[in-house]
Amino acid sequence: MQQNIHGGDIYSRQIRLDFSVNGNPLGMPDAAVQAIHEAVQHVGEYPDITAAALTEAVSRMLSGECGREIPKEYLLFGNGASELFLAVVHALKPRNIVIPVPSFYGYEYVAEAAGSHIKYVYLPEETGFRPGRELLQELTADTDMLFVANPNNPTGQLMGREYLQELLEHCRQQGITVVVDECFIEFCESGREQPKFLLGEIGQYENLLLVRAFTKSFAMPGVRLGYLVCSNAELREKIRRQLPEWNLSVFAQRAGIACAEQSEQYLQDTVEYVKNEREYLWEGLEKLGIRVVSGEVDFLLLYTTQHIYDSLLAKGILIRNCENFRGLGEGYYRIAVKKHEENEVLLQELAQITAE
Amino acid sequence: MQQNIHGGDIYSRQIRLDFSVNGNPLGMPDAAVQAIHEAVQHVGEYPDITAAALTEAVSRMLSGECGREIPKEYLLFGNGASELFLAVVHALKPRNIVIPVPSFYGYEYVAEAAGSHIKYVYLPEETGFRPGRELLQELTADTDMLFVANPNNPTGQLMGREYLQELLEHCRQQGITVVVDECFIEFCESGREQPKFLLGEIGQYENLLLVRAFTKSFAMPGVRLGYLVCSNAELREKIRRQLPEWNLSVFAQRAGIACAEQSEQYLQDTVEYVKNEREYLWEGLEKLGIRVVSGEVDFLLLYTTQHIYDSLLAKGILIRNCENFRGLGEGYYRIAVKKHEENEVLLQELAQITAE
Repeated sequence: MQQNIHGGDIYSRQIRLDFSVNGNPLGMPDAAVQAIHEAVQHVGEYPDITAAALTEAVSRMLSGECGREIPKEYLLFGNGASELFLAVVHALKPRNIVIPVPSFYGYEYVAEAAGSHIKYVYLPEETGFRPGRELLQELTADTDMLFVANPNNPTGQLMGREYLQELLEHCRQQGITVVVDECFIEFCESGREQPKFLLGEIGQYENLLLVRAFTKSFAMPGVRLGYLVCSNAELREKIRRQLPEWNLSVFAQRAGIACAEQSEQYLQDTVEYVKNEREYLWEGLEKLGIRVVSGEVDFLLLYTTQHIYDSLLAKGILIRNCENFRGLGEGYYRIAVKKHEENEVLLQELAQITAE
Repeated sequence: MQQNIHGGDIYSRQIRLDFSVNGNPLGMPDAAVQAIHEAVQHVGEYPDITAAALTEAVSRMLSGECGREIPKEYLLFGNGASELFLAVVHALKPRNIVIPVPSFYGYEYVAEAAGSHIKYVYLPEETGFRPGRELLQELTADTDMLFVANPNNPTGQLMGREYLQELLEHCRQQGITVVVDECFIEFCESGREQPKFLLGEIGQYENLLLVRAFTKSFAMPGVRLGYLVCSNAELREKIRRQLPEWNLSVFAQRAGIACAEQSEQYLQDTVEYVKNEREYLWEGLEKLGIRVVSGEVDFLLLYTTQHIYDSLLAKGILIRNCENFRGLGEGYYRIAVKKHEENEVLLQELAQITAE
C-alpha cells in the first residue's frame, strides 16, 4: 500500500497530532492564504501556461538568497517536486540510476516508472548515514543518473560543501546527471551558506538539476508546487516536454508568488524557530533514553528499542515508522519538529510511555 | 510559442471578453467555490493519496448518468486530462499513434513526448470533418493507439453511436488501444444518450480509455482535475505508475466532490442554457453572413473570409483563430457559447465589423 510508504496518512486513522509529516511548523504565510482565497475568482481562467509572474518572483527570491542572479529561464515549475522527478527520468531515460539509501522513496518510484535499473548504495550507520567514499566508488562510467537529497530524508543530514563539490566534479567526469533534492534546505541552520553554494554555482554544472518545493518550506503540501533549477538549456527543454501543458493550478501560482515575496523574513523566522524547537525536542528525547540519530532540519531521526509507534498511535499521535525505509530497520522513527505546544505534548506522552 | 497553440491566453493581452476558452458559461457551482475556500485550512496536510472521497463521489455521479454501476476501481484521477494523456503514452509506449485532425493539439503533444510516430488522418471538410470510413481504413495492424475526441474540438461534432461501436470493434480486432476524450460530452444535447452509451458499455471494451475532466463541464480550468475510466485493471495499473504520487491538490479533491454531488441538476441546467445560447449565436452569426460549420457543444466552429480575429481583438474580445489547427486553415475560428449578455456583445461587435 502506497500510504504506508509515506508519512502524512491522516485519512484512514483518527489522528490528533501528526508528527509524521514534516512541513514548516509556522504554517503557510498569511499572504499565501489570502492569495488562495483571492484566486478562487480565477478558477474559470486557464492558469498562465508560462507562469510568468511566478517565475519572476521565484527568480528574485533565489537571487536574493545566493547573492547572484538566478536567471528566470533557469526555472521549471512542477505540480510538486514529485512531478519534476518523474519528468526528469522520462526526459533522460537513464538506464542506470544510483540512489544512496536510506532516503526518500520517491526516487525509487520514478526510477521504476522509467524502467531504469537501480543501484542502491547503503550508507553506513556508523557515520549517521552520511554519504562518503563508498558513494563515489559506486558512481562509475555506466551510471547515468544520481538522485541524492541534501539535506537527506529521513536522516536530516547535510553533505559538506567540499564533499558536494567532489561529488559533482566526479559525476561530471563520469557523465552522470545529478539530481539534488533540496526540498528541506530552507530549514537548515548550518545550511544558510550551503544553499547559497549550490544555487550560486548552478551555472558551473551542466549536469546538475536542483529540485526544491514550496511543500515543506512553506507548509503547503496540499497546494502542489515545486521547481527545478538548471543552467543547461537543452536539458531543461527536454524535461519541459515531459510535463503536462497546464501543470500548475491558479492556486499554486498565486500562493507561490505570495510566498516568494514573503520569503526572506519568513524563512529567517523559520530557521530560528525550528532550531530552538529541534534543540528542545532533542534534549527532551535524550533525557527519556531515546537516541537522536541525526537531524539538522525540521525533523529528527530517532532510534529506540521501545515500541513507541503503537503506543503513540493509541494516544492519537502519528509518527513516521522508518522500518520500511530501505537501509534502515526496526527501531528507527522520524518525528517532525512542530509547534512548541505540540512538541511539549509529544515529550509528555513519550515520558509516560517510556516510564511504563 | 505554446500560448498560441491553445485558447485562453489572457495573460499577454488586454482582454475584456474571452471567447477563446470554452468552459461552462454557468461558472463553477457555488458549492465548489465554498469547498475551495474551506480547503484552504487543509493546505498543510498532504492530499489523500487514494482520493477515496472523490472516487466515491465520481463513481456515484457516473453510475447515475449511465444507469449502470461504474465501479470505483475503474477510476483514475489526474491533474487535468492533460496529465492523464501523458501518463497513458508513458505507460503503453505506443510506436504508432493515429490522430484524426482537426482536433485538440494535446494528443500530438503527448505523442511527441513519448517519441511515437504519428499518422494524421485528415477528416474531410465536406462532411463537416466528421470521422468516417477513411479513419477506419488507416487503423491498421501496425497501429498501437488512437486518440479521438467525442465530441471533437474544434468542430464540436459527436460521432454517431453505430460508428463509435464499429470503431471500437475494429480497433479491438487490430489490437489498438482507443483513448476517447470526452471532455465536452456533458454539453451535448444529443449526447444525453451518447455518454450513457460509452460509459455504460465501458466493461465491454478492454481496449478503451475514456478521459473526462472537470475543466470544461464545471468551468474550472484553474483547478486542474480530470479522470480516466477503464475496465482493464492491468492497463489502469500501468497508467497509475506513470502519475506522480500526489497529483491532486486538496482544492481539486474537494471541489471535485462538491461538483459531483451537484452534477445532476447543474449539468441538466447547463445543457439547456447552452442549447438556447448556441442557437441564439448560430442564428445571429448566419444573419451576419458568417458560416457556422458545426457545433453541438458549448462552442461553434465558424468560417468566414472577413478578418474578424484582429477586429475583435482591437475591441478587447479574444476568439480562437483556428488557422494553426492541423487540418484547418485560414478563415476558421472557434467561439465559445458564453453568458447571454456576453453573446449579445459579441454579435453586436461582429455586426459593426461586418458592416464596415
